[in-house]
Amino acid sequence: MTATKPSPETQDLADPAALVARMRAGERRATSRAVTELERLSSAAPRLLEAMRPHLGRALVIGFTGPPGAGKSTLVNAYTRYLREENKQIGIIAVDPSSPISGGAILGDRIRMTATLDDDGVFMRSLASRGHLGGLCPAAVRVIDAFDAAGKDIVLLETVGTGQSEIDVAEVADVRIVVSAPGLGDDIQAMKSGLLEVADILVVNKADREGAERTAQQLKGALSLRSGPRANVPVLKVTATTGDGVPALAVAIDDFATANVAKDATVRRRRRARYLIARAAADLVGERVRHGADGELDRLADAVLAGTLLPADAAGKILRGM
Amino acid sequence: MTATKPSPETQDLADPAALVARMRAGERRATSRAVTELERLSSAAPRLLEAMRPHLGRALVIGFTGPPGAGKSTLVNAYTRYLREENKQIGIIAVDPSSPISGGAILGDRIRMTATLDDDGVFMRSLASRGHLGGLCPAAVRVIDAFDAAGKDIVLLETVGTGQSEIDVAEVADVRIVVSAPGLGDDIQAMKSGLLEVADILVVNKADREGAERTAQQLKGALSLRSGPRANVPVLKVTATTGDGVPALAVAIDDFATANVAKDATVRRRRRARYLIARAAADLVGERVRHGADGELDRLADAVLAGTLLPADAAGKILRGM
Repeated sequence: MTATKPSPETQDLADPAALVARMRAGERRATSRAVTELERLSSAAPRLLEAMRPHLGRALVIGFTGPPGAGKSTLVNAYTRYLREENKQIGIIAVDPSSPISGGAILGDRIRMTATLDDDGVFMRSLASRGHLGGLCPAAVRVIDAFDAAGKDIVLLETVGTGQSEIDVAEVADVRIVVSAPGLGDDIQAMKSGLLEVADILVVNKADREGAERTAQQLKGALSLRSGPRANVPVLKVTATTGDGVPALAVAIDDFATANVAKDATVRRRRRARYLIARAAADLVGERVRHGADGELDRLADAVLAGTLLPADAAGKILRGM
Repeated sequence: MTATKPSPETQDLADPAALVARMRAGERRATSRAVTELERLSSAAPRLLEAMRPHLGRALVIGFTGPPGAGKSTLVNAYTRYLREENKQIGIIAVDPSSPISGGAILGDRIRMTATLDDDGVFMRSLASRGHLGGLCPAAVRVIDAFDAAGKDIVLLETVGTGQSEIDVAEVADVRIVVSAPGLGDDIQAMKSGLLEVADILVVNKADREGAERTAQQLKGALSLRSGPRANVPVLKVTATTGDGVPALAVAIDDFATANVAKDATVRRRRRARYLIARAAADLVGERVRHGADGELDRLADAVLAGTLLPADAAGKILRGM
């Protein structure tokens, strides 16, 4: 029998604790390996997560969302540059709707831009949100853990802003930044309205452009109609391309995190896991209600059509019967 | 005691069968009243729906969705004009994300545009999609019935294209038109990718602009990668502002409806009701999973975080316990 040398991949996974130690020593290949295994939820993932567990809970997760054209990627890059000057270790997760049109290369330009940041203090991974129509893929939650275990201080989570992404970022991030910009048009303004509900901090990007002050005033006006803590959401003007306003944004993020983010990392991690479960449960229930063949479902559907039963009451009956 | 004359509103609702007869005779005020009652699901709604029931099942529901800037409203107007020349009776439902920024007047321009179509053969209602982040409000399903009972041949359902709207239109409409246009940028291209999954017909609007042929070829290329019936989705170039291509679109819609739309209206109406129930069930389950306080949920969340339990399996356990 001939003894064969194990492949680097096999070696990486044979000793998860050693892999985590190498991640924490800043070895990019080790982090890359761990992220890939967790993204795919491979058979090695549970042992890896076990080895990571003592090191979890330090990273702050900051979500960036907003309508197309607001300049989210540019802002994430500018903020990353600022944080690197403060010697923070950064992980970036870009959630990219999988695109059959472009072959998945939507973020190609973005990746090239980020290459300028590609020192050992920044690690970026883009994830395709297959099957969720622009939503945030569950893999993002596991990749957050990998970055956390690798010693990243801050994980930046960027999504292409669609309805589902907004909801997802609100569930997953510790701090939620909603990015807007002047001159995006009515359709885009409309999309932004839902975003107000989930924002901890509002950014008007492209603040050097005409209409930025007006956009900021509109947002403040909308916020002033609200009561409770959300009435005090800061509205900050930033020009990501020059970096103007980025330090003030960093201060606002720090202030929010100090005042509002749970100190107990278990609380934050469980919230993320519950989001995954809720999402899966909604999918299961939806599948059953939409495609289930029994007569009871038709009877309930007919009662809803007749206006004698509310959809929520029909849903309650079905859930009790599952 | 003084006898008071009943108000017109009370009279309308005192005799639902008479109201429905007036709707079917083309009286706008009657249709407006019925739509409002169903939209609000008022106490009069069940009796109204009962009176409408014998007249339901004729209208074909055509959904228009797509990214901001694709020109959905202009296309809906152009198609409406075409259908009016064919003497079709038209109902239009525009789902408008409620906007605290603009005070809900996003569709103001749209409504003025549609005024040119405001003959007795066209009835338009815009609905705010409160609380659903751009999704389609359940009221739309009831308003479809009101238009159907009023004798509309075709109901056009237009949404601002966000992830949730796309899913909703796919559940509610009999024919799904996804509208695109050249030059919308990478972010927008990315949003479109999910739309391919729900399209029965793809329209490249603004076909007189540079890049339209390239956009059409990209869409055809993406479709060619697919197998099954969806590989044959037509890609049509239209210039809604001039009406070029609208007759060909009308033919494609007729062909699709003849080949694919269930003849039995009950099947189509039940599908819409099931969508309402599924949506409500997902909300109920999500609320419980996200905010439920029992230790079992934390235990399941921890197992998901450890990679030893899939979110879908945790969801299954929770649903069995509800």
